[in-house]
Amino acid sequence: MLKAVLVIGDGMADRPLKELNWKTPLETAHKPSLNHVAKTGISGIIDPISPGIPPGSDTATLALLGYNPLKTYSGRGPLEALGSNIEISRGDVALRCNFATVDENLVILNRRAGRIENEDGSKLAASLRKVKLKESDVDFLFKNTVQHRAVLVLHGSKLSPSVSDSDPGKAGMKILEAKPLDKSEEAERTAIILNELTCKFHEVLKKHPVNIERTKHGKLPANAILCRGAGVVPNVTSLKEIYDVDAVCVAATSLVRGACKAAGMKLVDVKGATGTPQTDFIAKARTAVQMLKQNDFVLLHVKAPDVASHDGNIRQKIEVIEKIDKMVGYILENVNLEETVLAVTSDHTTSSFTGNHEGDPVPVVISGFGVRIDGVESFGERECARGGLHRIRGMDLMPILMSLLGRTKKFGF
Amino acid sequence: MLKAVLVIGDGMADRPLKELNWKTPLETAHKPSLNHVAKTGISGIIDPISPGIPPGSDTATLALLGYNPLKTYSGRGPLEALGSNIEISRGDVALRCNFATVDENLVILNRRAGRIENEDGSKLAASLRKVKLKESDVDFLFKNTVQHRAVLVLHGSKLSPSVSDSDPGKAGMKILEAKPLDKSEEAERTAIILNELTCKFHEVLKKHPVNIERTKHGKLPANAILCRGAGVVPNVTSLKEIYDVDAVCVAATSLVRGACKAAGMKLVDVKGATGTPQTDFIAKARTAVQMLKQNDFVLLHVKAPDVASHDGNIRQKIEVIEKIDKMVGYILENVNLEETVLAVTSDHTTSSFTGNHEGDPVPVVISGFGVRIDGVESFGERECARGGLHRIRGMDLMPILMSLLGRTKKFGF
Repeated sequence: MLKAVLVIGDGMADRPLKELNWKTPLETAHKPSLNHVAKTGISGIIDPISPGIPPGSDTATLALLGYNPLKTYSGRGPLEALGSNIEISRGDVALRCNFATVDENLVILNRRAGRIENEDGSKLAASLRKVKLKESDVDFLFKNTVQHRAVLVLHGSKLSPSVSDSDPGKAGMKILEAKPLDKSEEAERTAIILNELTCKFHEVLKKHPVNIERTKHGKLPANAILCRGAGVVPNVTSLKEIYDVDAVCVAATSLVRGACKAAGMKLVDVKGATGTPQTDFIAKARTAVQMLKQNDFVLLHVKAPDVASHDGNIRQKIEVIEKIDKMVGYILENVNLEETVLAVTSDHTTSSFTGNHEGDPVPVVISGFGVRIDGVESFGERECARGGLHRIRGMDLMPILMSLLGRTKKFGF
Repeated sequence: MLKAVLVIGDGMADRPLKELNWKTPLETAHKPSLNHVAKTGISGIIDPISPGIPPGSDTATLALLGYNPLKTYSGRGPLEALGSNIEISRGDVALRCNFATVDENLVILNRRAGRIENEDGSKLAASLRKVKLKESDVDFLFKNTVQHRAVLVLHGSKLSPSVSDSDPGKAGMKILEAKPLDKSEEAERTAIILNELTCKFHEVLKKHPVNIERTKHGKLPANAILCRGAGVVPNVTSLKEIYDVDAVCVAATSLVRGACKAAGMKLVDVKGATGTPQTDFIAKARTAVQMLKQNDFVLLHVKAPDVASHDGNIRQKIEVIEKIDKMVGYILENVNLEETVLAVTSDHTTSSFTGNHEGDPVPVVISGFGVRIDGVESFGERECARGGLHRIRGMDLMPILMSLLGRTKKFGF
């Protein structure tokens, strides 16, 4: 049976930039391997969600895995949780949290408590887990992940993800009251529970020995918890069930790992993979190639180009694209394209000019046994737009790949 | 912040014509400014509704404003009303009406009462407004607009737009009985009210002094009212609410004005704008440019090419396209494309051969800061089909434009 590798360069697509003589970083980069994939493949452009809508990496990954993001996504919380190896079940409501520093009026002084160290975070989280809720039929899990990052999972009946954030998104503002976003009893109850936790967490944290110690050493105390992105686990059928594939995710970014986990994929950790421009690109490629031996589908995600774009660092974006090219080169050298379908795309356009995710489509190329090679010779936003795949939706890619593997089911007779 | 102008040439797209050596009027016209927009922009084709479906100007305009016409449109009546500055609220049922001439058996002799003068129409409408309905919880507004054209608005509870037309659409046929189009009590009641009004209006009109006078002078009496296109105001979220843009409509056609009004746009009147091939193209362009100073989005609509197409007047169609080209030239000279996104399209194909709206896609081009210029060098049905936008739906255009303005919201994180 054929196998497939899907390489996703996060935020790799861009708009033409004046600094690059109105070319994009991808068009500018030296990328012999990506161009080889284009020359031996079929190209096109993808609207990850729909034309003009800027995707998040979470919604875009769900789409690129073949799921309708508009129907399956309710918030980043559960994906963060899943991606951080935190157990979460259907029906649980999960939120992404920050340790933060607030003053006595709950006005935020620092949204990340000075990027608190993991050790301090773990001690504080342990204390927070002892908080008791008024509602006896709901319990919660609070777990710190890296630095100021944490996840809150509410478990129980009659809960809803339709609640607003307590995190106002910037310092200088007071912690917000979580509010129900619809008129259901569940949303109201969930908002009340969240507000109760915000209060009780603050009470525990403000007098916690770790924070007294931090203050003594001139560090910012982590005396509040900010929550956002309430959601439930996407209610999706696993890739195994849909296509009968054993699927693996090679990614460092927790949101992307979470989306893959929701799809029933195995998560693999790679030494040296950091989710930054300094990640070990070749180590990730090596792991992907290894994983392909015992599995049918490997998603290989690289966060680096998105980081460079958000920083407006065009030079760095070109550099990491050239490293992705080398990564793809490693894959080309170590898999047989007569037995493997190799696809490369981006989850969204991130403009190095605006620093934001944008609604423009992303390029895609698919090479491997059986594809209708289309004469496109270079991998880029505009070259791929001339290709034989034309303009497709994010959720169309997976069926196309699985069809090349002979794993999509016939509809009708 | 960037701003946007969308130029819509009504029915500007066409099919290849034998008289033009199998080119279209748009392909034949001398259009240096439109070609300049193509050379500096990204092109594509649009299915205003969906492939093969001939759009009306009303449904197409709703779509080009980003709304799903299949979900938001129920009939032309409310758009005519809104576009003629007639007050209409959510829940009201509005119909487009004609003053007509019928014989004693209610057979239509002339569907426009000889294009009755506005003054006569106003006097007749004033009398019609005195008619009393049996149902005391429903009232109505009857207002003439231009010549034989009028609008009827029903206001009250338990009304439905699901009623058939009393207007058979051609002379020689009897006025039709309005019938409920579904089995609801509301539709049945609305049909009864409409039929009651048709009778009572005829009673008032046939002996009205204005008509006695008209007959005396050899003019056709306006002795009946024909109704069609029952509908309710599209239940759409305003552009302001969706994209936070102040939006303006520069159009003379009441249907287009009505769709824009439904979207919460301001309507601007332009001296010399007539909705005919004799309109003042440059005055409209001047107004659009002025409006752009205090607003974020201007829709500039020109009816002329549709009029020429319906008349099968190929020569005139080419002439008005060349005037639209000059209009676009004025815009190019007076806005800065580094601060403005300029898009040009058509709301539907009107065939100069069949004289009808057709289901073929229309060309579109978008020029301005950040677009992925695609190498298309000419604005036309077939040239644009080679462009980087590929084939999109009418309702995709607005998110694409608003995304270039940085005004679409990210979905996900």
